[in-house]
Amino acid sequence: MATELSAAQLIEKHRPTLDRALEAIQTRAYWSPHPEHPKAYGGTDESGRGSLSAGEGQAAFDELRGTRFELSQPGTDDWVGDEVSPYGIELGVLYPHPDIDVLLPAMRAAMPAWREAGPETRALVCMEILARINARTHEFAHAVMHTSGQAFMMALQAGGPHAQDRGLEAVAYAYREQERVPGAASWSKPQGKRDPLHLNKEFTAVPRGIALVIGCNTFPTWNGYPGLFASLATGNPVLVKPHPRAVLPLALTVRVAREVLSEAGFDRNLVALAAERADEGLAKTLAVRPEIRLIDYTGSTAFGDWLEANARQALVFTEKAGVNSVVVDSTDDYKGMLSNLAFSLSLYSGQMCTTPQNILIPRDGIQTDAGPRSYDEVVSDLAGAVDGLLGDEARANALLGAIVNPQVKERVEAAASLGEVALASRAVTHPDFPGATVRTPTIVKADGARKVWENPEADAAYLSECFGPVSFAVAVDSTPEAIELLRHTIRQKGAMTVGAYTTSAEMERLAEEACLEECAQLSLNLTGGVYVNQTAAFSDFHGSGGNPAANAALCDGAFVANRFRTIEVRRQA
Amino acid sequence: MATELSAAQLIEKHRPTLDRALEAIQTRAYWSPHPEHPKAYGGTDESGRGSLSAGEGQAAFDELRGTRFELSQPGTDDWVGDEVSPYGIELGVLYPHPDIDVLLPAMRAAMPAWREAGPETRALVCMEILARINARTHEFAHAVMHTSGQAFMMALQAGGPHAQDRGLEAVAYAYREQERVPGAASWSKPQGKRDPLHLNKEFTAVPRGIALVIGCNTFPTWNGYPGLFASLATGNPVLVKPHPRAVLPLALTVRVAREVLSEAGFDRNLVALAAERADEGLAKTLAVRPEIRLIDYTGSTAFGDWLEANARQALVFTEKAGVNSVVVDSTDDYKGMLSNLAFSLSLYSGQMCTTPQNILIPRDGIQTDAGPRSYDEVVSDLAGAVDGLLGDEARANALLGAIVNPQVKERVEAAASLGEVALASRAVTHPDFPGATVRTPTIVKADGARKVWENPEADAAYLSECFGPVSFAVAVDSTPEAIELLRHTIRQKGAMTVGAYTTSAEMERLAEEACLEECAQLSLNLTGGVYVNQTAAFSDFHGSGGNPAANAALCDGAFVANRFRTIEVRRQA
Repeated sequence: MATELSAAQLIEKHRPTLDRALEAIQTRAYWSPHPEHPKAYGGTDESGRGSLSAGEGQAAFDELRGTRFELSQPGTDDWVGDEVSPYGIELGVLYPHPDIDVLLPAMRAAMPAWREAGPETRALVCMEILARINARTHEFAHAVMHTSGQAFMMALQAGGPHAQDRGLEAVAYAYREQERVPGAASWSKPQGKRDPLHLNKEFTAVPRGIALVIGCNTFPTWNGYPGLFASLATGNPVLVKPHPRAVLPLALTVRVAREVLSEAGFDRNLVALAAERADEGLAKTLAVRPEIRLIDYTGSTAFGDWLEANARQALVFTEKAGVNSVVVDSTDDYKGMLSNLAFSLSLYSGQMCTTPQNILIPRDGIQTDAGPRSYDEVVSDLAGAVDGLLGDEARANALLGAIVNPQVKERVEAAASLGEVALASRAVTHPDFPGATVRTPTIVKADGARKVWENPEADAAYLSECFGPVSFAVAVDSTPEAIELLRHTIRQKGAMTVGAYTTSAEMERLAEEACLEECAQLSLNLTGGVYVNQTAAFSDFHGSGGNPAANAALCDGAFVANRFRTIEVRRQA
Repeated sequence: MATELSAAQLIEKHRPTLDRALEAIQTRAYWSPHPEHPKAYGGTDESGRGSLSAGEGQAAFDELRGTRFELSQPGTDDWVGDEVSPYGIELGVLYPHPDIDVLLPAMRAAMPAWREAGPETRALVCMEILARINARTHEFAHAVMHTSGQAFMMALQAGGPHAQDRGLEAVAYAYREQERVPGAASWSKPQGKRDPLHLNKEFTAVPRGIALVIGCNTFPTWNGYPGLFASLATGNPVLVKPHPRAVLPLALTVRVAREVLSEAGFDRNLVALAAERADEGLAKTLAVRPEIRLIDYTGSTAFGDWLEANARQALVFTEKAGVNSVVVDSTDDYKGMLSNLAFSLSLYSGQMCTTPQNILIPRDGIQTDAGPRSYDEVVSDLAGAVDGLLGDEARANALLGAIVNPQVKERVEAAASLGEVALASRAVTHPDFPGATVRTPTIVKADGARKVWENPEADAAYLSECFGPVSFAVAVDSTPEAIELLRHTIRQKGAMTVGAYTTSAEMERLAEEACLEECAQLSLNLTGGVYVNQTAAFSDFHGSGGNPAANAALCDGAFVANRFRTIEVRRQA
């Protein structure tokens, strides 16, 4: 087949990067091929690859507004879309609505050639898709910003290079897993004095079927790319069903993927978009179709549980709600701890699945390098740190972003009723987007006594996920009691992250043991420029897959190993 | 802790074998550390390791009969057991019946030290367990023979070294998977002109919880060991719930495991037995306990489906029923094909999950090196080959073994009502065990026209698993139609194996494509000493995990990758 993008070109362009990625997931040292500085984009790099500058990215985004987003998909029966940016502007983009009885068979028909291409070609095609997305990072930044409400810089970094990193990480894992079995083997079994038995064996990685990616509102690319690329790299067509409020970043992704697949000589229907009408519930319909054999989902626990219970024909990877805790026992850098925590609570208005919610503080206070601090002092010092961090309106807007949807706004407004407010949320005006809903975090005091959290009837507010800029300063009887509450919370509610601050080797050991036994990722004594709510691809695991917050981790062998099967054909030699 | 079996001893004894196993799963060339010849056992080998001779094995088995099988497990509330050999003798062994509210907490308490031991020590301890089991291969042979009904030689090989191979294969996979993430990483992210960000990271493989192995009647060790060792090697305690008719081989296994664990300084409750009272349904009770996080099951589709639907707190690995087909298109070794098929149908009276059931033969006949053969000729030649193979009573007994339970006996007796009988089953007398039920295979003619198998109301008998020595000679309109029926059968009923005989490159391609798309393991043109129903550990996959017969394959990355999770503890450097 004549292709615009030959196998040789793909190998030359991407094989060295794939090898580097394979090394990175092995050493887990720092690595990324995707620059995170905005100025790294624009113009042409030394390899002759162009990328959009800041201005070009803005212009590309502006051109998309108020248009039909053409994808040339088979079985388009309507055009849908009503995205309104959390910054107040209407996107006005219309997307193809699928007739799934036409689209799914077309996607299935694309499978054999993609399977035959083999793991390396699939990985390299995925990498070309990611490279082209990377070149349009500035355009994606606006698309992510105006669907998730992330501030521009975060939308650029988390929605751009960091998401691309997670996609590439999944490609590397998928490639490595498929390559573990050789393509062929010669098998010769001795038979004593008789001739040995000989067989020739061929092994082929085969896909499971169509994969469904159900996108989320807050991190459409970052949470969408791992599943998308893991499934595609293992040979499965991927149908992307975005959150109706965050379609554009994934529609752009699908368009790039279809373009690259076609240029590389494959059927572009290996990747398709399934935009939905308001209140259509398309994910529910798709999830139980027999053609759908893999599902990646990020969102509410209720729908995640529904998927796990009902989409029985598919393997289901879910990231659901959780309650993240930070244990504050003691510190030798009180100021650093406060500013680190204040940043974690403020970033994207706490609308990250990794944001701490419960700060567990002994009611008798803690030891610090600045002397002992009572519970009340720690809470007010933390409130002060948040105030200080967000005192400047420009900085506040740059950190907070906008509230993603009305439910989060209602939740932060209702938080005052949950207990004594240690830090009130306030509205911030955005200079460029008067329609944006911007809120600073609130901190509510709570009682972490065992009799409260062990009593289901007490129904402690801090034991439910309160997604958004709401956290609880939970007074506990002691650090060991904090660890017990931590264990209880992880086991019952799940946690994507756990933080702890302590100068005591014994308390550190207790926190570690709790996280190893309850299966949660632990960050200890972060006081500098790394935050508990951030993970780096190729090095940090996102989630553990072992507590109720998520049944998978990004990214490990288990995330990819069952997305394909190995078929053996053996012949007498 | 003072131990009888030190880490250094374990490394010296088993690390070279582990390395060899890791190489074998990579190349998939022939390898086994467990001799399959009975005479390889007995006396002391060059490394000073002793093993039971044939006579010693027999004596050890005889001593077990009519005794209480002591395991010193916590929470034993009763003694149960009523195994009767398919060869007609009562075993009379009584096993501890567990109070699971005592036993499960004891098993959980054993977890932290086993987790801390790390992947290498866990692998080496598992290998010591396997080595001690291997040394008692002759004793296990009798235990397997008198619970499964396998003939002695098969019980020795399949229940001994082949099962041990599959256990070791699982250990190798588990070790490799856990070792993919380094124990520690130093992460340093450049920050332009500012100082880089530094973190030190530690990664620990942590277990999921207690693993439940639900054993089967026909292959207690072969089907039990992969899950048992995969779970144990990844840090999980393992509770073994044997089939009530096949307890002894797994009870012996549990006893050896507990002895080795204890000698190596670990809590012996990491492995325990859960024998059940008649009709107790203990598997159902255990499967939904919150402590149980992994389940390995081999058995009926009905209970496998029940487990998948109800044991939602656990990862469930199932091998269920399937319908295996062989497509007969043409051959250049007609005699070899017939004798190979006759052997496959006869071995263990067709009571293997891998035995062919449906032989798909064009109704207009086939081309062979012995000239064209009509459908009727192929069927009668195959019947003749089975007759010839089993004509000698001693050989028949050595190949067939005994019928495992009354249901199989009823099924073979009822087969005559399913269609025209091409080969009738006959009873064979066992010289040593007059109480044994031994039956030769029956072959029934069937119509494989599309209008029959596409019509649910026709309810073709060959579309259901007829477990035991019953196969169907299915007349199809053509080889491509046979492939369509093959696809239909795999998709609807599942298949552990597929065979095909053809001299046509085009028909071979069709068969391969069908197996790659429907996800089934294919053996082509086997006419010698390898049979479609046999797989070799370290090289062949048993099942595909991608069709309804099994949701996992033995053994691949997916079989082990999700049995543990990786927990990261990161600290500011």
